[in-house]
Amino acid sequence: ACSTKEESAARTVGRYPVPNKKDMPYDIVELMEEVEMKTGFLPNVFKAMSHRPAEFRAFFAYYNAIMNKDTGRLSKADKELIIVATSAVNRCPYCVVAHGALHRIYSKQPALADQVIVNWKLADLSDRDLAMLEFALAVCRADNITEEHFQKLERHGFDREDAWDIGMISAFFAMSNRIAHYIDLRPNKEFYTMGRTP
Amino acid sequence: ACSTKEESAARTVGRYPVPNKKDMPYDIVELMEEVEMKTGFLPNVFKAMSHRPAEFRAFFAYYNAIMNKDTGRLSKADKELIIVATSAVNRCPYCVVAHGALHRIYSKQPALADQVIVNWKLADLSDRDLAMLEFALAVCRADNITEEHFQKLERHGFDREDAWDIGMISAFFAMSNRIAHYIDLRPNKEFYTMGRTP
Amino acid sequence: ACSTKEESAARTVGRYPVPNKKDMPYDIVELMEEVEMKTGFLPNVFKAMSHRPAEFRAFFAYYNAIMNKDTGRLSKADKELIIVATSAVNRCPYCVVAHGALHRIYSKQPALADQVIVNWKLADLSDRDLAMLEFALAVCRADNITEEHFQKLERHGFDREDAWDIGMISAFFAMSNRIAHYIDLRPNKEFYTMGRTP
Amino acid sequence: ACSTKEESAARTVGRYPVPNKKDMPYDIVELMEEVEMKTGFLPNVFKAMSHRPAEFRAFFAYYNAIMNKDTGRLSKADKELIIVATSAVNRCPYCVVAHGALHRIYSKQPALADQVIVNWKLADLSDRDLAMLEFALAVCRADNITEEHFQKLERHGFDREDAWDIGMISAFFAMSNRIAHYIDLRPNKEFYTMGRTP
Amino acid sequence: ACSTKEESAARTVGRYPVPNKKDMPYDIVELMEEVEMKTGFLPNVFKAMSHRPAEFRAFFAYYNAIMNKDTGRLSKADKELIIVATSAVNRCPYCVVAHGALHRIYSKQPALADQVIVNWKLADLSDRDLAMLEFALAVCRADNITEEHFQKLERHGFDREDAWDIGMISAFFAMSNRIAHYIDLRPNKEFYTMGRTP
Amino acid sequence: ACSTKEESAARTVGRYPVPNKKDMPYDIVELMEEVEMKTGFLPNVFKAMSHRPAEFRAFFAYYNAIMNKDTGRLSKADKELIIVATSAVNRCPYCVVAHGALHRIYSKQPALADQVIVNWKLADLSDRDLAMLEFALAVCRADNITEEHFQKLERHGFDREDAWDIGMISAFFAMSNRIAHYIDLRPNKEFYTMGRTP
Repeated sequence: ACSTKEESAARTVGRYPVPNKKDMPYDIVELMEEVEMKTGFLPNVFKAMSHRPAEFRAFFAYYNAIMNKDTGRLSKADKELIIVATSAVNRCPYCVVAHGALHRIYSKQPALADQVIVNWKLADLSDRDLAMLEFALAVCRADNITEEHFQKLERHGFDREDAWDIGMISAFFAMSNRIAHYIDLRPNKEFYTMGRTP
Repeated sequence: ACSTKEESAARTVGRYPVPNKKDMPYDIVELMEEVEMKTGFLPNVFKAMSHRPAEFRAFFAYYNAIMNKDTGRLSKADKELIIVATSAVNRCPYCVVAHGALHRIYSKQPALADQVIVNWKLADLSDRDLAMLEFALAVCRADNITEEHFQKLERHGFDREDAWDIGMISAFFAMSNRIAHYIDLRPNKEFYTMGRTP
Repeated sequence: ACSTKEESAARTVGRYPVPNKKDMPYDIVELMEEVEMKTGFLPNVFKAMSHRPAEFRAFFAYYNAIMNKDTGRLSKADKELIIVATSAVNRCPYCVVAHGALHRIYSKQPALADQVIVNWKLADLSDRDLAMLEFALAVCRADNITEEHFQKLERHGFDREDAWDIGMISAFFAMSNRIAHYIDLRPNKEFYTMGRTP
Repeated sequence: ACSTKEESAARTVGRYPVPNKKDMPYDIVELMEEVEMKTGFLPNVFKAMSHRPAEFRAFFAYYNAIMNKDTGRLSKADKELIIVATSAVNRCPYCVVAHGALHRIYSKQPALADQVIVNWKLADLSDRDLAMLEFALAVCRADNITEEHFQKLERHGFDREDAWDIGMISAFFAMSNRIAHYIDLRPNKEFYTMGRTP
Repeated sequence: ACSTKEESAARTVGRYPVPNKKDMPYDIVELMEEVEMKTGFLPNVFKAMSHRPAEFRAFFAYYNAIMNKDTGRLSKADKELIIVATSAVNRCPYCVVAHGALHRIYSKQPALADQVIVNWKLADLSDRDLAMLEFALAVCRADNITEEHFQKLERHGFDREDAWDIGMISAFFAMSNRIAHYIDLRPNKEFYTMGRTP
Repeated sequence: ACSTKEESAARTVGRYPVPNKKDMPYDIVELMEEVEMKTGFLPNVFKAMSHRPAEFRAFFAYYNAIMNKDTGRLSKADKELIIVATSAVNRCPYCVVAHGALHRIYSKQPALADQVIVNWKLADLSDRDLAMLEFALAVCRADNITEEHFQKLERHGFDREDAWDIGMISAFFAMSNRIAHYIDLRPNKEFYTMGRTP
């Protein structure tokens, strides 16, 4: 009965079948349960990627290496803001909605992600945050990145290591947005309302 | 003397400093030496990524999971063709030149990558290969991917697992091309001539 | 004291000064008070447009003629959906956020506007609603409108009078979005949360 | 006989039926007769909009409020030039041809509108007129409008009220061009030759 | 005195100096006088190109080979229509205005070129002429030209030799428009009014 | 037997039939034999254009007037570089591959054309060569060419006559690329490997 219910849930995640928990490798089940405990529900990206265990491991190891590292000047809210702004360019429903929610929670600014989704240049952002997004969006568009890009970041307190961090998050989500498109990944309904009321 | 020479080489790799081998973690040195043995030289992407050991590991683990897996209908030449076609859209010097070389070697067709770089629709490709690149380029552009995209692939013998493989390679190089842009990664000179004569 | 407070509020509306209520023509004050009563606050577009009383009257008379008419097949939620989808293309913060709120209220579907803002083709819409937005967006982009456009609408139950209604709303907000851009009109903070919880 | 002839004329105006004069509201007939008297023929936009009397009134009231007001630095020829330049971007046959004719008449420069239609930056315009069109076209494209846009206008003698006038005309014709597209409105043949000879 | 007047005229032709007639090669003077006799004035393109006699000869020899040949299904008006439509895409003041005038004269349809300049798809053209322009514009945009393009032309009575003629005129004016841009070539004032009255 | 073999070769050149040598005008045969002697093979463009003898003569006379003139600061390698960079924008297989080969031979830099094809701004070019290509590409895109364009060239040692030379080559290949597209002209296989090894 349980597996039937899980299969039915799987149908709403995207195009590819999601294995039953009992057929998944143990490390993947463990990670999923840890995330579900912490978040209160299991974000659909975990279900969808479990279709390919080796790629599941590679994807989340990469994600952790760049999102959960302690070094650098980017706050958790900064990182989520980069994801929201670049994923909006790629029109990715999952990444915009899920990371919009995470941004609201980390930044405690419930309207900012919505503003960035519509028009980042008109959002209520500091000059520092605008410079950060300008660099992230240049990477997102696969622009040539020149010394001028780095100098502009430096004028707002970001050194070259920070530039790498901004660029890597933008590049990683250039990948994630495209995976989400061919998987047809959609956000869990919980994300729409998370963090809207302080 | 040796380290001085290495630092000087590093300056040609890109924007970020490359550590001396003696300062690198052992597993990274080991992988580099294995690649250098097999290829005859060390491709610059290994040097450039060693600036961030954790991301080095994540990047190449992901690369291996999708490029060196044994399942699916994509040949080694198919995979390189996808990389060449999508990296040309993103105007990535490293990926186009390095994977153009690998395509020549795997496909034993020395002119095909050059044709795809200029105009993939006019290249001497089978209908199957055109369908494969059409899907890869839709993912590359972050297009919405619809059932029609999958059906078109199916008409040329690619099932949904193959579609995932094509999409994932395109998505991974959407990331790699963008990393290469902000690192200013350039191809080793050896790549330009590899595989041109049968 | 009251006027000082009003002037200060005016500064957040946009680029142009907003007159004190006592200096406004009586019909404009009356309309504003009626709207404020019904909505619970005065949407910034009323303040901003009061800078030019003759244009205020023309703008809202036009708005009423197309938004509050009783004929045709478009529901109130349909009209708001057209405004959200087309204003998202024009990256208009005011219109997207304010009419996204109105859509949530009229449709009682709290997530749909957010989906349409990110990627209307992937939103949870009926074929009828997709056809309606496809026409609205063709008008929004100033595409040539052909007989095929009308025939496609007809296949989803919209006759030529409905096409006019869809086109006119899209055209009117092509104007409104552009006015909002040069006025630098921003949404009242109330709009962000309206209608999110059923 | 007369009504048959009128219906036949209606067919050349656009996609929607034009009512017989005897079935039109009196105020609309009156306005039409006044315009026909002054112009020598009835421009097709009046016929086409009469299909919807309430919208006819709203449209022409708005038009009068912005085109026939006495304040501001914009001459009649300036206003027509803005309409020609922005309507050319939207490829609107009616607006380009009809307002090109009006520009020739008001400016007494018979070649200027033709130049602006092809390439406004290469037209024989003063720096002031180029600055005016640059602002109008930024609004036309729904660009973000920044302080720099206003400062550039100020350097050519336009204050913020003039900027509103320029922006509003551009925005109103963003609407008109789109209405003309879905109505399939075409210029009266008289417009092509009006004002060509001094 | 005569040469002074000519030099002054040269200043209005474009960026490059025009030699005095007495310093020009005899064959170029002869061609100019023949054209001036036939047209009533000397079109500026002849003056501008005389700055480089060898290129003058090559340019007009090529022009004659494609514009004045007797074979094929393209009438003189067809050829001018192709030039107007493609030069409008390249926003070339000289070619649009001069060949718009020639089209009016050859076609005896004084409004058609003006319609094509604004929006060729909405111009009063036969299906045959639309197909001709569709092919010319595909060549103009440097699109890949496929068998489908040729088949579409064939359905409107154009064989492959006609396709070559259409394509060659479009390609030649792709060159001419670009030359006109860097020379800053402007139309003689006579062209604006030629052929407007039957 | 010989003519059969020639006809079969013709089929690989493009869409249009190539006449047998014995049916060609003598001057065209002579030119072909001279080129074949010098190059070692007959480039396909000569075969393809021989379908239209008058246009063959006009095309190559023009080509010679601009490519083989002795005046000006552009070296043979400079001219080929302009052709490679602009033909890459137009995705022309013949021109990119054939002139890439000629560039390798004249410049003795075997990797540079490949770099320019992928991303000219990241190629190993001097500031002078970047300025030259920037101008050539502005002409290629049919941009308006302003005094600033000429001043930028002058800062790198190019006077207005050099600007004409750069612009004319770019314009001529704007034409050639488009002819190649509708003819479906493909490079001889010899071009792919010419000049790769010093």
